[in-house]
Amino acid sequence: MAALGGRRGRLVLTAARRDPLSRRVTPVVGRGLPHQHARGHAEALLEAHRADLAIQADESVDFKQAWADPVTGHVFCLSEGPSKEAVQRIHQRAEHPYDEIHEIPGTA
Amino acid sequence: MAALGGRRGRLVLTAARRDPLSRRVTPVVGRGLPHQHARGHAEALLEAHRADLAIQADESVDFKQAWADPVTGHVFCLSEGPSKEAVQRIHQRAEHPYDEIHEIPGTA
Repeated sequence: MAALGGRRGRLVLTAARRDPLSRRVTPVVGRGLPHQHARGHAEALLEAHRADLAIQADESVDFKQAWADPVTGHVFCLSEGPSKEAVQRIHQRAEHPYDEIHEIPGTA
Repeated sequence: MAALGGRRGRLVLTAARRDPLSRRVTPVVGRGLPHQHARGHAEALLEAHRADLAIQADESVDFKQAWADPVTGHVFCLSEGPSKEAVQRIHQRAEHPYDEIHEIPGTA
């Protein structure tokens, strides 16, 4: 529900375009991915996410969720922290460059 | 945690650039918004979100969350459904045009 004003930190969404799995692993069968490749991508995403989680406390940032599409290479992270810049610093130290960063204080 | 393969629906993120509140309501004081304007925006976001919620069952879509930045006008929706196209049809009927739509099957 509407949460503007009651939140202590700032919600931040970051977006990145990575090398799609479909470019690295061929052939991709139809629109789906072979289960083994999909599992490999999920593990890679989780491992990358852990690199952010391991150092997030240094900037009082809380990474809430990460999502990715292995076919297109799009990756999105939702985090909460004192500022957009704090989230930027964690992503930089974890070597996760991103293409877009948005503060999203309004929630419904 | 990694959720690839165990999910029935597809997670979809939609992104839109709306007219920023800062263009419609002046002056915007500093980097923050006057509380009244922020509250008005939160209510508008919630009302727009309800238009999607009211018809989502027609396409077996579940809108999980909507976020917005009233200053920049960025709006993001996270939903789960049978396909990207099903989510598209709900947004179109609710008269919520978007600029980007991404399937994000990988979760961490």
